[in-house]
Amino acid sequence: MTEKYKGLSAAEFFYKNREIAGFSNPTRALYQTVRELVENALDATETHGILPTIKVMIKPLDGKVMVKVEDNGIGIPPEEIPNVFGRVFYGSKYQLRQTRGVFGLGVKMAVLYAQITTGKPIRVVSSMQNSEFEYEYEVQIDIQHNTPVILSLKVRKKRKGHGTLVELITEGNWFLARRKIESYLRRTAMIAPYATILFEGPNGSLEIKRASRKLPPPPQVGKYHPKGVDIELLKIMIRNSSKKTTLVEFLMENFDGVGKITATKFCEWAGFSPDTKLGKLTMEDLEVLARKMKEYNKWRRPKPITLSPVSAELLEKGIRHVLNPEFATAITRPPSSYGGNPFIVEVALAYGGEIPPSNTPILYRFANRIPLLYDEGADVVRKVVDSIDWSIYKVKFPAPIAILTHVCSTKIPFKGVGKEAVADVPEIEKELTTAIREAGRRLRLYLSKVEKMYAIKRRKVTIEKYIGEVARALAYIDDSSEKVIMAKLRELLKKDIERRGVAYAEEEQ
Amino acid sequence: MTEKYKGLSAAEFFYKNREIAGFSNPTRALYQTVRELVENALDATETHGILPTIKVMIKPLDGKVMVKVEDNGIGIPPEEIPNVFGRVFYGSKYQLRQTRGVFGLGVKMAVLYAQITTGKPIRVVSSMQNSEFEYEYEVQIDIQHNTPVILSLKVRKKRKGHGTLVELITEGNWFLARRKIESYLRRTAMIAPYATILFEGPNGSLEIKRASRKLPPPPQVGKYHPKGVDIELLKIMIRNSSKKTTLVEFLMENFDGVGKITATKFCEWAGFSPDTKLGKLTMEDLEVLARKMKEYNKWRRPKPITLSPVSAELLEKGIRHVLNPEFATAITRPPSSYGGNPFIVEVALAYGGEIPPSNTPILYRFANRIPLLYDEGADVVRKVVDSIDWSIYKVKFPAPIAILTHVCSTKIPFKGVGKEAVADVPEIEKELTTAIREAGRRLRLYLSKVEKMYAIKRRKVTIEKYIGEVARALAYIDDSSEKVIMAKLRELLKKDIERRGVAYAEEEQ
Repeated sequence: MTEKYKGLSAAEFFYKNREIAGFSNPTRALYQTVRELVENALDATETHGILPTIKVMIKPLDGKVMVKVEDNGIGIPPEEIPNVFGRVFYGSKYQLRQTRGVFGLGVKMAVLYAQITTGKPIRVVSSMQNSEFEYEYEVQIDIQHNTPVILSLKVRKKRKGHGTLVELITEGNWFLARRKIESYLRRTAMIAPYATILFEGPNGSLEIKRASRKLPPPPQVGKYHPKGVDIELLKIMIRNSSKKTTLVEFLMENFDGVGKITATKFCEWAGFSPDTKLGKLTMEDLEVLARKMKEYNKWRRPKPITLSPVSAELLEKGIRHVLNPEFATAITRPPSSYGGNPFIVEVALAYGGEIPPSNTPILYRFANRIPLLYDEGADVVRKVVDSIDWSIYKVKFPAPIAILTHVCSTKIPFKGVGKEAVADVPEIEKELTTAIREAGRRLRLYLSKVEKMYAIKRRKVTIEKYIGEVARALAYIDDSSEKVIMAKLRELLKKDIERRGVAYAEEEQ
Repeated sequence: MTEKYKGLSAAEFFYKNREIAGFSNPTRALYQTVRELVENALDATETHGILPTIKVMIKPLDGKVMVKVEDNGIGIPPEEIPNVFGRVFYGSKYQLRQTRGVFGLGVKMAVLYAQITTGKPIRVVSSMQNSEFEYEYEVQIDIQHNTPVILSLKVRKKRKGHGTLVELITEGNWFLARRKIESYLRRTAMIAPYATILFEGPNGSLEIKRASRKLPPPPQVGKYHPKGVDIELLKIMIRNSSKKTTLVEFLMENFDGVGKITATKFCEWAGFSPDTKLGKLTMEDLEVLARKMKEYNKWRRPKPITLSPVSAELLEKGIRHVLNPEFATAITRPPSSYGGNPFIVEVALAYGGEIPPSNTPILYRFANRIPLLYDEGADVVRKVVDSIDWSIYKVKFPAPIAILTHVCSTKIPFKGVGKEAVADVPEIEKELTTAIREAGRRLRLYLSKVEKMYAIKRRKVTIEKYIGEVARALAYIDDSSEKVIMAKLRELLKKDIERRGVAYAEEEQ
């Protein structure tokens, strides 16, 4: 009665459990493949200040599907290409900066899925900005060892500009995945109106041209915030520092927003001498240091230079463009943080117009500019929206209301590696609630205004109905012409309505 | 404008993304730690035919929490202990068999979380059934290399019987985690009534004694089903076979329920000669073979020997015991499969009694005997239950109704490595719907019966009211004694009611 023990490589683990990365069936796998490739293409462009032009092509091939995505990004260093596409947990996204990709997993899952369903490798053609050459690789994954296998490599003079083209032949169900893929591309355009996305699919092409040439400032790579620390992180940082560094120097060099005064004050509060040399710290000290750094309440807030919010202006433009509502408003909240990770919440709310009425607000969820299309029921946004009593804001369901939310952070607390739902971290929940309530208040103002306008209009119609009769009666008494009296009465009514309208506007300012 | 590329070890990846394994904050981490340890304890006992006795101890220690779990299981081979606790993606659960653990990740996450929050290692004492010795280890994880670090090792003569004791000192919030941990233990007892669970916590102890000594037959290790195949799996299996093996022999040896006739028929259907030697197969052939094996519709259904359902009898006993309802029923569906993985769905439904009324059925979800307490909104069970029109079954909300579901499989399609929600695989969704509807029909029969009984009772009360008066009137005409007539009338009424009751029962059979 003994057990058989064995170890798995990271590639083997995700090969066996591909559904946790979103590759659960041919439909979902095709959607996830497109998503991962498009997200990498956007990360290679917008994150580096390049206006993205992304070409996506899907072509059914005898029971299989070819997916091709091409970008005008910075390109991948040729020596990194095999690992980037053929090694799970390898990439350039393991830094403190807002990017769409974070896990170093997505594109490898796409390669892996293609490999186990069609046996075909990924083809990558990439050229960097300052290079004269372009490199073309065919790569597969040695699943058991989690290492790339290079099937072919060609080097040639660059033919076009810089960028990367990726081509996969995979198992996929275009018929069932179509709706999700198209709405994924449309929603991507909604949150990235500076991107041009050209999609060529089996049912014709879709061309989403950029609506704006204004690119938000790209995020910068930042330092850790002292609240986000743990023993392991301290150990790594200390390993990379000289043993003679003092604690104050160490804190100043390694953490976000820590100057000499802050560092010294913290050391005194935590019971460490500011001059303690790193070499003298014991494991016990590290444990206390990590705990105290988390507990200390006087650190500066994390700096949001690592983030790249969309801006209320672009969000409102986006939601108006796509939903064509009667009313729209948008809010970008000030930066906040959870566990040392900076984050910003943005919300747009739209009402009426072409929005179909429904029993609960329609949600458009985004995280680091990624549209989230699955698992809405598990997302903190659904929780927040459902917990609000919308009657306070004069919304009576079924109502034509839609809410767009965007959370951006150096670390989105996704519930899974498939990146479909944001966990209910209390700080994020609070910011979302504040923003959505603020949008709700603006909606109430608008709806009150509409109600009042409607009441005034009704008054006008009612009074107008009697003008004829009243004029006739007055003409009888007054001997003036009925027409003159009618004109006078109309003038009076017009002034009255205008006065009410103006008075109302004054009241609202 | 170049990027910094790097690779992460599996341990580093989960260290950075611990929230996707359920370790998102001190409350959830404590819950998850207890869960992982208890699940391992149960896997070490029930899976091997041992009646489980599990001791769980939680003790707050100056801002930290000590968690200790002890079982009477088969023990861990001493040479495997370091890897089992100190290497992510290592374990004995990577086989085709129903176990609570599957990912080889949970306990390592608990070790990792303790290590980065308190700096303390895990202490493991284990002794195997046929060994004279017990081994005590202190283990940590070298996160950067995903390898175990042994801090101490002691060997001594066995003092008690076989089993494993695990002790961690970790960061945790007992106050907030208490309710979840206690209900986790109670629900575990509900689905494993043959287990004794002793819990000693800061607020006193909880002793759940086994309600039954009947252990379900343990699951056996099985073979892959031909429908669950992919190119990679075929490659591995072929690598482990002789090159001279014929295709028919290969299929018979490696797959579940494939005999000579089935194998030969398949080969003919798929266009392969049954005598093809494995050594002759090309990559192209492998791709075709994998595709055809998936498409072929005449394989036998997967054998459920790898599964261990609870049984309708035990489920009904469990739900009656815990909820004390007025009505309860349970169903175990016949085995089914998705993508080559066998699974069985079990459902229990309880109504009335001590169940509090609510606006939607209260759910108790289980997967491979693990109670699922989080992410109900993302689970396929919630989707199925919400899609049913309960008024068909005479249920008017708010109603006192609870539904327990148990899905067991060699591969539960969990939505994440935290094991909290089951994905909506169509085959599982269908089985759940069938089982829940069947339970609903049984409930409707019961409720109809109750309605009829109530109508008969009302008839009895109404008639009884007039017996005195009628008896008096009859006595006046008939000259008999009023008392005698009353007794006769009562006798008549009794017979009438009994007849109605019996007639009704006959109608229902």
